Amino acid sequence: MRSVLHREYQGQNCSVAAALEVVGERWTLLIVRDAFLGLRRFEEFQESLGVARNVLTDRLNKLVEEGIFERLPYSTRPDRYDYELTKKGRDLHVALVGLRQWGDKYLCDKPPTLARRKRDGKALVAALVPKDTKAVPISDAEFVAGPGRDPDASTWRVLNRRSG
Amino acid sequence: MRSVLHREYQGQNCSVAAALEVVGERWTLLIVRDAFLGLRRFEEFQESLGVARNVLTDRLNKLVEEGIFERLPYSTRPDRYDYELTKKGRDLHVALVGLRQWGDKYLCDKPPTLARRKRDGKALVAALVPKDTKAVPISDAEFVAGPGRDPDASTWRVLNRRSG
Repeated sequence: MRSVLHREYQGQNCSVAAALEVVGERWTLLIVRDAFLGLRRFEEFQESLGVARNVLTDRLNKLVEEGIFERLPYSTRPDRYDYELTKKGRDLHVALVGLRQWGDKYLCDKPPTLARRKRDGKALVAALVPKDTKAVPISDAEFVAGPGRDPDASTWRVLNRRSG
Repeated sequence: MRSVLHREYQGQNCSVAAALEVVGERWTLLIVRDAFLGLRRFEEFQESLGVARNVLTDRLNKLVEEGIFERLPYSTRPDRYDYELTKKGRDLHVALVGLRQWGDKYLCDKPPTLARRKRDGKALVAALVPKDTKAVPISDAEFVAGPGRDPDASTWRVLNRRSG
């Protein structure tokens, strides 16, 4: 799949095309979204997304290969891993928040998820700004349930269990 | 394809999933990227992207249906159209610039494209900021060739012809 994409998009002198080769496959950005929300494990992603296990395995393997996730063992026999976003993975937050805002504005009644600054709860947005503008580091941000949250949605069910 | 995506992502209580249903298909974001760079016509998108004509027709029709592009006739017999980004389409700029920056940082040597403010040429970035931060409206921004530009790439060839 990657090689097909690569072949299809090649000749495209643009970082957008290169980025889409890495994160443009179906499910990939939703897995990354779930990681930003706090999910870490195969079974959690699987329950949250309802994606076929073989597809999830494929996507997670590629995300590790691309250096977006790091695999950290938390048990042996059987081997089990946490998938943690690397710096490269966390740097996808601007694109992801930008996409979410657009969805909030045009496709949903109320935002299911809000971005806010950890220390004071101030609402955060992704925006086009002059390069020297002070940005909020992703380590200072958190993503929490918003007014449009559906408590029965699978992602929130998994998150509640994790934090509960 | 849309309906497949819709079925697959449904149950996902999140604007990211909704946004990906609309712009997550292969080629769609590259067409939108080209529109931000200044392309307007079917033949221009086709030459820039090298995408199959039936796929391009499908994607443009969906983008019009979704209200991301507006079709403006510029000739009759045969009917020919300019595809202009609507407000909804232009509002994709934060996600797109965020994705491009990530590609610039991790996947390319030098940025092929730069975002800058029209009036003073100041470099612009997409960033996570407090909600009350003054953003640069997309109407005040332009996208121009950067140091990583490959002058032989098809997109720049089409753009040069348009502006030349």
